[in-house]
Amino acid sequence: MSGKLFIVGTGPGKPSQMTPETREAIAAATEFFGYGPYLDRLDLRSDQVRIASDNREELDRAQAALARAAAGANVCVVSGGDPGIFAMAAAVCEAIDKGPSEWRQVDLVVTPGVTAMLAVAARIGAPLGHDFCAMSLSDNLKPWDVITRRLRLAAEAGLVIALYNPISKARPWQLGEAFEVLRNVLPASVPVIFGRAAGRPDERITVMPLGEADANRADMATCVIIGSPETRMVARQGRPDLVYTPRSFNGESH
Amino acid sequence: MSGKLFIVGTGPGKPSQMTPETREAIAAATEFFGYGPYLDRLDLRSDQVRIASDNREELDRAQAALARAAAGANVCVVSGGDPGIFAMAAAVCEAIDKGPSEWRQVDLVVTPGVTAMLAVAARIGAPLGHDFCAMSLSDNLKPWDVITRRLRLAAEAGLVIALYNPISKARPWQLGEAFEVLRNVLPASVPVIFGRAAGRPDERITVMPLGEADANRADMATCVIIGSPETRMVARQGRPDLVYTPRSFNGESH
Repeated sequence: MSGKLFIVGTGPGKPSQMTPETREAIAAATEFFGYGPYLDRLDLRSDQVRIASDNREELDRAQAALARAAAGANVCVVSGGDPGIFAMAAAVCEAIDKGPSEWRQVDLVVTPGVTAMLAVAARIGAPLGHDFCAMSLSDNLKPWDVITRRLRLAAEAGLVIALYNPISKARPWQLGEAFEVLRNVLPASVPVIFGRAAGRPDERITVMPLGEADANRADMATCVIIGSPETRMVARQGRPDLVYTPRSFNGESH
Repeated sequence: MSGKLFIVGTGPGKPSQMTPETREAIAAATEFFGYGPYLDRLDLRSDQVRIASDNREELDRAQAALARAAAGANVCVVSGGDPGIFAMAAAVCEAIDKGPSEWRQVDLVVTPGVTAMLAVAARIGAPLGHDFCAMSLSDNLKPWDVITRRLRLAAEAGLVIALYNPISKARPWQLGEAFEVLRNVLPASVPVIFGRAAGRPDERITVMPLGEADANRADMATCVIIGSPETRMVARQGRPDLVYTPRSFNGESH
């Protein structure tokens, strides 16, 4: 008799941005698999067990969770943000794809959440107000030349670009090089948003033009949003500038 | 003395997918501007006023809401999904950009929400598990040749593509033509997900290969997700197939 496997997203970290549906899924599970800092966001009961692992060990974690669910436990796999965006839902699907046939019989429930780029966008206006893409800048799982080619094509297409995993101790130079690639395609005036820890007490949102964008402003908790040539800034006295991408196309990126 | 202007997203329509933060914003406002069916999702008190308008009138609605907030009212502008994704936050920013200077002094609060593509993805596995883009297929506010060019570049880049506003009575042929454009770039086997009303009682999620994708399966409540060459399907006996895009790149789209 198989148990249930919930895959949930906590949202960006502000407790009131976690959906009631996700809270219900958490209440229904007894074993929790995830990266430690994400598990820390949950308020677990004494009968609920945490199994924390490093954020590089997604496939191992997915396999361990599936094995427990297949054995009958009600298991919850925890991501930050939304579990389907550069997070655990894909790892669990991959583990099912490659795993024993009984894992296909596990009752899988994915609850969507507020992913980082949406929380960052909400704090600054509407930079994702028109066509955009989301890319992981990590070259742990794909070659760097694929990433730079995607960046170039996305910029040529006039898409706003949201970058997840922009930088880490093991990947210190990639974001700077990504800015270089984009400077060859986009005007230097395009706004770049460094959205760190949106909605959390240590939130820091800064904006600078692509021509001056400094990769050192980003850390692992940052989602970087690079505007398109259509993206505009609105200055406000005594309030932060707004950044938005209009719903209508004016032709500057074509 | 300026009031507050909340811009909120209800999520895809399942009540438990609306965040507590959004509920608090709704409780704090007294005048509600939005498309009627989105306002219908709110459980308003008798002292809260609804001002419904058609879904083509975003800029007028934004201006009316800003005028009321500038006059001191606590106003809420309501979108479905997330207010920053093809929704009202960009319209309000645009109205501020073009409007009288006192509108820049309005206290603006945007609360993020679960946007349609995340809810659809959660119901089918993890199709957005790696690099992807989100595009509006509406040619009301941008030329059709810009849209087809973006589709081609996004497919060449190996991005999964989520299409918002795929079809309407006034735009009946665009989705079919978009599939034609994509068939020239992508393998016919790439899965296409028609995600209708995800999480609502009238939900209908269907998957078919791009080679056979039929635009008539979509309506205004549908978000269409087109896989990349990396996207995979997992057959499950007695359960719907899973669709996911792996976290790692295997080289098929390069």
